[in-house]
Amino acid sequence: MSGNTLGTLFTVTTAGESHGPALVAIVDGCPPGLALDASDLQRDLDRRKPGTSRHTTQRQEPDEVEILTGVFEGKTTGCPIGLLIRNTDQKSKDYSAIKDTFRPAHADYTYHHKYGVRDYRGGGRSSARETAMRVAAGAIARKYLEGQGIVIRGYMSQLGPIEIPFKSWDAVANNAFFSADPDKVPELEAYMDQLRRDQNSVGAKITVVAEGVPPGLGEPVFDRLDAELAYALMSINAVKGVEIGAGFASVAHLGTEHRDELTPEGFTSNNAGGVLGGISSGQPIVAHLALKPTSSITTPGRSIDVNGNPVDVITKGRHDPCVGIRATPIAEAMMAMVLMDHLLRHRAQNADVTVTTPILGQL
Amino acid sequence: MSGNTLGTLFTVTTAGESHGPALVAIVDGCPPGLALDASDLQRDLDRRKPGTSRHTTQRQEPDEVEILTGVFEGKTTGCPIGLLIRNTDQKSKDYSAIKDTFRPAHADYTYHHKYGVRDYRGGGRSSARETAMRVAAGAIARKYLEGQGIVIRGYMSQLGPIEIPFKSWDAVANNAFFSADPDKVPELEAYMDQLRRDQNSVGAKITVVAEGVPPGLGEPVFDRLDAELAYALMSINAVKGVEIGAGFASVAHLGTEHRDELTPEGFTSNNAGGVLGGISSGQPIVAHLALKPTSSITTPGRSIDVNGNPVDVITKGRHDPCVGIRATPIAEAMMAMVLMDHLLRHRAQNADVTVTTPILGQL
Amino acid sequence: MSGNTLGTLFTVTTAGESHGPALVAIVDGCPPGLALDASDLQRDLDRRKPGTSRHTTQRQEPDEVEILTGVFEGKTTGCPIGLLIRNTDQKSKDYSAIKDTFRPAHADYTYHHKYGVRDYRGGGRSSARETAMRVAAGAIARKYLEGQGIVIRGYMSQLGPIEIPFKSWDAVANNAFFSADPDKVPELEAYMDQLRRDQNSVGAKITVVAEGVPPGLGEPVFDRLDAELAYALMSINAVKGVEIGAGFASVAHLGTEHRDELTPEGFTSNNAGGVLGGISSGQPIVAHLALKPTSSITTPGRSIDVNGNPVDVITKGRHDPCVGIRATPIAEAMMAMVLMDHLLRHRAQNADVTVTTPILGQL
Amino acid sequence: MSGNTLGTLFTVTTAGESHGPALVAIVDGCPPGLALDASDLQRDLDRRKPGTSRHTTQRQEPDEVEILTGVFEGKTTGCPIGLLIRNTDQKSKDYSAIKDTFRPAHADYTYHHKYGVRDYRGGGRSSARETAMRVAAGAIARKYLEGQGIVIRGYMSQLGPIEIPFKSWDAVANNAFFSADPDKVPELEAYMDQLRRDQNSVGAKITVVAEGVPPGLGEPVFDRLDAELAYALMSINAVKGVEIGAGFASVAHLGTEHRDELTPEGFTSNNAGGVLGGISSGQPIVAHLALKPTSSITTPGRSIDVNGNPVDVITKGRHDPCVGIRATPIAEAMMAMVLMDHLLRHRAQNADVTVTTPILGQL
Repeated sequence: MSGNTLGTLFTVTTAGESHGPALVAIVDGCPPGLALDASDLQRDLDRRKPGTSRHTTQRQEPDEVEILTGVFEGKTTGCPIGLLIRNTDQKSKDYSAIKDTFRPAHADYTYHHKYGVRDYRGGGRSSARETAMRVAAGAIARKYLEGQGIVIRGYMSQLGPIEIPFKSWDAVANNAFFSADPDKVPELEAYMDQLRRDQNSVGAKITVVAEGVPPGLGEPVFDRLDAELAYALMSINAVKGVEIGAGFASVAHLGTEHRDELTPEGFTSNNAGGVLGGISSGQPIVAHLALKPTSSITTPGRSIDVNGNPVDVITKGRHDPCVGIRATPIAEAMMAMVLMDHLLRHRAQNADVTVTTPILGQL
Repeated sequence: MSGNTLGTLFTVTTAGESHGPALVAIVDGCPPGLALDASDLQRDLDRRKPGTSRHTTQRQEPDEVEILTGVFEGKTTGCPIGLLIRNTDQKSKDYSAIKDTFRPAHADYTYHHKYGVRDYRGGGRSSARETAMRVAAGAIARKYLEGQGIVIRGYMSQLGPIEIPFKSWDAVANNAFFSADPDKVPELEAYMDQLRRDQNSVGAKITVVAEGVPPGLGEPVFDRLDAELAYALMSINAVKGVEIGAGFASVAHLGTEHRDELTPEGFTSNNAGGVLGGISSGQPIVAHLALKPTSSITTPGRSIDVNGNPVDVITKGRHDPCVGIRATPIAEAMMAMVLMDHLLRHRAQNADVTVTTPILGQL
Repeated sequence: MSGNTLGTLFTVTTAGESHGPALVAIVDGCPPGLALDASDLQRDLDRRKPGTSRHTTQRQEPDEVEILTGVFEGKTTGCPIGLLIRNTDQKSKDYSAIKDTFRPAHADYTYHHKYGVRDYRGGGRSSARETAMRVAAGAIARKYLEGQGIVIRGYMSQLGPIEIPFKSWDAVANNAFFSADPDKVPELEAYMDQLRRDQNSVGAKITVVAEGVPPGLGEPVFDRLDAELAYALMSINAVKGVEIGAGFASVAHLGTEHRDELTPEGFTSNNAGGVLGGISSGQPIVAHLALKPTSSITTPGRSIDVNGNPVDVITKGRHDPCVGIRATPIAEAMMAMVLMDHLLRHRAQNADVTVTTPILGQL
Repeated sequence: MSGNTLGTLFTVTTAGESHGPALVAIVDGCPPGLALDASDLQRDLDRRKPGTSRHTTQRQEPDEVEILTGVFEGKTTGCPIGLLIRNTDQKSKDYSAIKDTFRPAHADYTYHHKYGVRDYRGGGRSSARETAMRVAAGAIARKYLEGQGIVIRGYMSQLGPIEIPFKSWDAVANNAFFSADPDKVPELEAYMDQLRRDQNSVGAKITVVAEGVPPGLGEPVFDRLDAELAYALMSINAVKGVEIGAGFASVAHLGTEHRDELTPEGFTSNNAGGVLGGISSGQPIVAHLALKPTSSITTPGRSIDVNGNPVDVITKGRHDPCVGIRATPIAEAMMAMVLMDHLLRHRAQNADVTVTTPILGQL
């Protein structure tokens, strides 16, 4: 398959550049009969939308999504769902300064070497702008999964040096940082304000959790649920690391402390992050992802041009000083797509299976 | 695709259980004309083989691989390559004790719920035994890549609490731990000996590096090179985390420190781990993976049986106290398969591309 | 993969219903640097367009295609190409008569049983309207292939009982039937006029030929070039049979007459239709397809409703009395996509191959 | 995907050459819990086996299949099923005569141009020997489908000029030709005996029918059931044409005679061959395939060598004078694999669908 399609049965194919006319997606494999309209997608798009606080890019994009196909009389038909988001804030500015220059830590250099040509306006296809379509497509998966009792939620668990503990899901929606701890918000705001004054950027860590996932999702030995989550989450712009459950902390764990014991009342811990042998265990699926600081900063950096000559680059424009801030809805969307795909794959092969063993909860 | 196939153009499909008659693989998409015989595969298989030191399982498996198809007169023909490894050390022991019991932190519980039936002998398909075929298949990719100047090597960078610095590639082959620092080996041996006495197990961190990778490999926006590496590495048994380049350290990075600057002499750093925008930059590809401690320990653990009744489980048998010790060749194999697949995919689409911009090295 | 994507490396994903707001497609895997604008696609769309003669449906659709992504400064970038065609002639008529009724020989009954719901307006996704996007996407493949010296052309070789010999490619563009014999046109017109008066419909046979295809395209043993052509051509609405080369005439052939002999001057015949062992031979690729008569006729037919009760059905509306008449550009488009995909696949695996044996022509 | 894998969810990957050590297959996606042992596969392998009458090749191959993985305690586990058939009758003869020569109408010329090298012993991978694995893999699908009430059977419907009417399924097993008309057998035998004396070969037509297929299988718009059948059947060696239902006869049909009317008692005819809009209708699935005469005949033919020089070729060895004779079990196997794959795909997406409309039978 070409690189812009994700999934085996529930497939999402996207297209579109930062400053082209539009973003497009085709979502195939959605079961028929799901009540769906554009507002279901808009809700998550609005959560990712730029310009909603002073801590994100001031680019103004309404990100209005149109459902063009696959929905009839308010319900999915089982046929592919075509989505369209017009780009509206394409400033017709002068790009000659960056046309032949590679911004450090951007995809400019690699796109140039791979394709020979590139749409240099705002990063073209390599811009995080394409993630708007991921959020829209993921919202479809999400709606279906919610009907199955599966709820996916995320939050920012670290901003630069500041660790943010989990307090409550309710808190997340009430601040610009997707912080699950309302008391941390003033510290985060102060940190970001200083960062902007310093003309710098910073990384972040996001945690995503799926609850209500039944045991059995995931296809060993390669298409394990955790492997596919790692793929989907690592494919988000700026992500440099993915953990499932205890993640890198497992390195220093002893077997006696790491293993999650089973009791008739439930699992006693969740170092596994809800995945055993690549298959969901019924515990919450927990993933963490590390996002690097955006490289689009106004502090000059050394680089070269297409002829190999040294240049100093200042990336102007309207950029997120912390791309992690808007990443939570994207990570949720990716997890939703993967779970949706694996729910369908599991059903396909194991429709005949009946198991009387009780499904354990989480203590 | 079903879950036991990896890759788009260079595809590896495997089958086989821990205590079944054999492991099988079909490797499709290898270019014709590659000189290949079983000894090319055996070399890596021997590096993964159990029982070569007192620090790994004492199961005796010669892991002798037979090439059944796709090679003629010592060269690949372009047709699929069939591989066979007979299992020889299948002790016909009594499995009745574990048949109806779920070992904590094993795939027993999830396989049971997914499939209704499972091959409980030694974990069946969920056993790390299947990774032998990954190593064999990866060796084919590796041989081809070496002919293209691409070299893939790995080492253990942490064992439990002990961080192991990189000293030299030469050191790696000369100790049982794949340590790149020969001076650390006595400490590692002492740690493992104590662990065995404690009837416990421990996690580990492995680092894999590909050098000589040309810029251009990777297919945005989903099939990014880093996303596919994350998928492939996370699919290895016991892996709970994957990092590319700076990985989770990126969370606390400022933009000014994280970005890798470009100069006519080369990149000044490699926080990106050789991947920008999902495409290889020509820098070394660097990945780290976290492996959890094996759950097969003789210290009793709480669990349940298939009827939901509480049981105490002691996992006897011949198990690795640190599965990370034998994981380096597996991680190398996975990276080789992914790079091979993306080399072919890149060629397919971009055969017409010519770029005169110089390719930067690493300072 | 879900069912609305075709191809492995050059992939075409489509969406859209007959009477929905639009048709959408995403074409992924096109090499970068191809000069492309909407007029390249419009040319073929206009050849398929309804309403250009009295022998096709009088539905008026301008079928204007918009390229939304993947093209920058007049050239493809290597990123996915998003296409949009708005439906304009969606008569807001009363569908209550057909809503709960199955038209004989239509997909109504099967869509109903498969999905439980269906977009009954004009057949929804099962309408041949979706083939407009095939033509648009195929035109991209076609343009690229033409740059490689590969030319794909088709013609109608039979209309109902009337066999139409091949005279010249030039003739094809100059009549409403895609007849390669200008002298046959009056007979075809008379036949169609009578058919309309009889309120009936009729089948047709289309022949498609690709010239300039190099030897080597096609991937044994399943993804043979002829197998993939059969798949692509059979996927066109109303197609009931596909032949490669001599096709069903091969059944009565003796080995001595069927085999195409090779001489230093070229192949002496082309019963193989340009494919040997599933791989292109360098001879013209020749395929024939049989299209059934459209089932949308005003002569009443027996059917049932969703409750199983008998009904008489008259299919009103603006339908093609011979769907084969507009099928030639669709068949060409499908052949173009398959050849494009296989050209890329062949390059991927066999970039290292050099063969000095001369390539034979066709005597 | 590489070319040697068929299917999306029920996938079959094969490897192996005519005169190599073995044939290998991995069948992935089979539901767990299916009772299966080698005898289930052997039954169909024996029906395809050479040397069972004087009308087929005298090569002696026991075609004994070994199940290496995926079956435990007599039942499938849901894990991939590895199959092995050792080649035993590899005569170590002198191949120098054909090594640098292309046999007319064989894959020699195209494999040579594609891969640069080829296993010339008996045609290597291009030999029909690989179809043994298709039969073995198809038998697994078949067994599962039979448990769902789906029965697949085939027969020879034409041998060269001799049309063979359908009389009864019982007749098919009782003659070497898979003739459904026992009275035709003497004529067929006489024809074949004369053909052998003439040192010639001839084509054949095979018909395959699946009964008991529920409505709903097939994924529009590309992965239609008929399109995938066309792909699978055309991928069989020597096949040059595929028809569904009325096939090429549809060309001359009028709409009033072609359409299959629906009545509460059932469909009144089956010109559709059981597929409407690419989805099974519940009627019998009917496909016909045309096989060309084998090109391996001892009557000399003109050809060239690898340097382009003219040569006369006589193909010695033990060849089938009519490859169609042994093709029936292969065609059945291919249909079984396609139906199996689509049964799983249908389940995946449409598990929620309930339809109360009665399913029609066939009048």
